[in-house]
Amino acid sequence: MLNKQEIMQGLTQHLGYSHSPYSGVQVVAAIVYETNGEERVAYGVNIENVSYGLTVCAERSAISAAVIDGMQSIKALYVMSNQSDPISPCGACRQVVTEFMQDPVAPVLCVNKALNKSWESTLGELLPNRFDLG
Amino acid sequence: MLNKQEIMQGLTQHLGYSHSPYSGVQVVAAIVYETNGEERVAYGVNIENVSYGLTVCAERSAISAAVIDGMQSIKALYVMSNQSDPISPCGACRQVVTEFMQDPVAPVLCVNKALNKSWESTLGELLPNRFDLG
Amino acid sequence: MLNKQEIMQGLTQHLGYSHSPYSGVQVVAAIVYETNGEERVAYGVNIENVSYGLTVCAERSAISAAVIDGMQSIKALYVMSNQSDPISPCGACRQVVTEFMQDPVAPVLCVNKALNKSWESTLGELLPNRFDLG
Amino acid sequence: MLNKQEIMQGLTQHLGYSHSPYSGVQVVAAIVYETNGEERVAYGVNIENVSYGLTVCAERSAISAAVIDGMQSIKALYVMSNQSDPISPCGACRQVVTEFMQDPVAPVLCVNKALNKSWESTLGELLPNRFDLG
Repeated sequence: MLNKQEIMQGLTQHLGYSHSPYSGVQVVAAIVYETNGEERVAYGVNIENVSYGLTVCAERSAISAAVIDGMQSIKALYVMSNQSDPISPCGACRQVVTEFMQDPVAPVLCVNKALNKSWESTLGELLPNRFDLG
Repeated sequence: MLNKQEIMQGLTQHLGYSHSPYSGVQVVAAIVYETNGEERVAYGVNIENVSYGLTVCAERSAISAAVIDGMQSIKALYVMSNQSDPISPCGACRQVVTEFMQDPVAPVLCVNKALNKSWESTLGELLPNRFDLG
Repeated sequence: MLNKQEIMQGLTQHLGYSHSPYSGVQVVAAIVYETNGEERVAYGVNIENVSYGLTVCAERSAISAAVIDGMQSIKALYVMSNQSDPISPCGACRQVVTEFMQDPVAPVLCVNKALNKSWESTLGELLPNRFDLG
Repeated sequence: MLNKQEIMQGLTQHLGYSHSPYSGVQVVAAIVYETNGEERVAYGVNIENVSYGLTVCAERSAISAAVIDGMQSIKALYVMSNQSDPISPCGACRQVVTEFMQDPVAPVLCVNKALNKSWESTLGELLPNRFDLG
């Protein structure tokens, strides 16, 4: 079982890979997932684009890295940014995360870089009555 | 003041403009907004793309039509689809709608095409603790 | 037949509706299309979002406004921005425009706000060997 | 130096991770890049979403995996799909790839799963006069 301290270290180590020349807002996310009965973690950063609209958030970047490793479902989501207050996942990321959600009470933990402020929620709370086609 | 019955007629009239050759799911949205003190409504449909990822939802299509008409803030959102149950806005649309939200209790009403099933919420409830940069 | 001067006036009149608080780059587009044998024009502006990734370009905004008016195919595309040099459509817009392209030599005209610099191309040249599923 | 045969094997091995329950079109991409003077490869698959619009293509998934590994620039792009003919990158992917393009003649190679049909181009040819803000 991955412990929270290891993931916090991983977030801190990867934050600088953020490609954010347009906003200066650096974000890194960690997706904890299971593949073949083993618990793993994948990291992702925000990757901005000169068109703005083709920017991808850290949360979805991390999902890309997890899916290519065989991710079947998301166990937990962590988000860190270089802003003074913790930021929460945008609506687009909430929709994509819940595509892989088997457990609506899976935790979401958002922290600032200094690790002295945090915000907690769950996948289910973040997107009430989520869009789906039944 | 626009009445609900007129908007329901507008939704029904515009649903067929949906460009949805890939999914067959037709969606139309109405955005009620104010511009220069006058209340108006703009409609939009889902516009799918062969790449899937460049598809735009009906809600965001309607916002495009409202912004070019001078929309300052969103008063209400209506969504109709050709599915048997009402569908709710996806997370991406919730994020974009709240970019123009001044009133978190502004109503959201989702209906099916037959108008015999509906689901109601508010802009604020749809995206709790929304992503923002403070 | 719409003349070019009228469209240039329309672009200039609509540029200020751009919602671009994050980049300061204002863009407006005009889509010339046919519906029921009548030639029409729809305008759209870039609509940025605090998430960056949910930003929509002016070209796709204009397509939303045209589709809800019954657009069947795109006859011409015009793009104006407040930058000193004309900007060209991003790759995402090129893909979406060509979803509605029946004529690969349909003109694309990009101009700056001062109208003293321009760049011309065609829909077909902008996206050689476009992605499609045959 | 990575050889082409190794990358073709990698593409074949990763294709099945595609999350494409809506279209059935499986796509895998490989990004060859340099980090700290070492040449590496990252793979990505298309990850579809029930909203369609939040789908991400294989090419951009692979870029996410490369950026979190320290990618500085893209050396080559490979795309394989389960379709009978090779597919080319969509316009959105072309725009994102060129954000990391230092060499406009970097090769792009698209193949089908059976490896008996291919299509070649370069990053520069795929997006003539690309959108940029100078």
